[in-house]
Amino acid sequence: MDVHRFERQIQFILEIDKLKTVLRRTYLIHQDRSENTAEHSWHLAMMAILLAEHANEPVNVSRVVKMVLVHDIVEIDAGDTYFYDTAAALDKSHREHAAADRLFGILPPDQGQELRELWEEFEGGETADARFALALDRFMPQLHNYHTNGRSWAEHGITADRVLERNASMAAGSSKLWECARSLLDDAVAKGFLQSTKEK
Amino acid sequence: MDVHRFERQIQFILEIDKLKTVLRRTYLIHQDRSENTAEHSWHLAMMAILLAEHANEPVNVSRVVKMVLVHDIVEIDAGDTYFYDTAAALDKSHREHAAADRLFGILPPDQGQELRELWEEFEGGETADARFALALDRFMPQLHNYHTNGRSWAEHGITADRVLERNASMAAGSSKLWECARSLLDDAVAKGFLQSTKEK
Repeated sequence: MDVHRFERQIQFILEIDKLKTVLRRTYLIHQDRSENTAEHSWHLAMMAILLAEHANEPVNVSRVVKMVLVHDIVEIDAGDTYFYDTAAALDKSHREHAAADRLFGILPPDQGQELRELWEEFEGGETADARFALALDRFMPQLHNYHTNGRSWAEHGITADRVLERNASMAAGSSKLWECARSLLDDAVAKGFLQSTKEK
Repeated sequence: MDVHRFERQIQFILEIDKLKTVLRRTYLIHQDRSENTAEHSWHLAMMAILLAEHANEPVNVSRVVKMVLVHDIVEIDAGDTYFYDTAAALDKSHREHAAADRLFGILPPDQGQELRELWEEFEGGETADARFALALDRFMPQLHNYHTNGRSWAEHGITADRVLERNASMAAGSSKLWECARSLLDDAVAKGFLQSTKEK
């Protein structure tokens, strides 16, 4: 075995400790702080295990788990690009590909390539596994927002029509999750903590 | 399908958001704060994927990943029991079993039973998958302690002989990880941030 193989694996494991310091726009339900990307990735993996039966198409649960564990590692260099930030979205792909080069490049080549391909598959959203993983990634913030009385939506001036438009592709991975998300949004509007549309 | 099945799954997913608020004794490498159990679980899952080739026996990587994702969920009710706290260890099993009853009981019975059995298998340490998962769980704090100059060891008066004694079972899951851990300990002692034995 390559003498440096183990050293490269350990170096990567130390490097990804940084994902715990990348903050998202969502807030925890039971504590007054922003969620970080490492704990978010754990939460998605648990959802993949528990909700796979609600995927529209049959999925390989182990692959989806692996995919969501890895899906945001590029944020260590590229930062968390807010889902509703259209300006930041313009160079997101460029920033994230450079991050992928550096980060997955730390690993032994076979493992780096495997994780990179999983990340690219997730980003591409062209397979059943990726469609379901993307649906989970879009569904989770709806749960967090709903159960924190729309705090992050309010802070960023996000309205229900915007949420619906940006998240509609959730339905391609799971009609069930999309149906649930829409009913949470309706309820958030009814309860008054989410505006339905931008006021003129 | 049971009409309450999806509701129970979502209730569990919301409940385990609390794991992000359970603090461990380890410190992050790149930020001055304690690690929480959710992000720790993500990190172990990444290690399971990357280091499986260093398990002593062949393991089912997907099962190990699932096992480490779930292995500390009981801490939501039972808290994190410090690995070197012999007094707290006395009722740890009792506290954690009560936690498992409540938490896994939120899920649909088939899923609750599956996760509970994985947790019990981990705790038992009698299978190849559990031995490797336990080795990862013991190895990770050595990395964190070493790369934060022994901060948590110092705070709790932990000496190298104590670390060696409490972690020797790591070798049953992975001789390679145990060998690496021992060399980190030797180096920590040599560098003067870990005492070798308790001063008389």
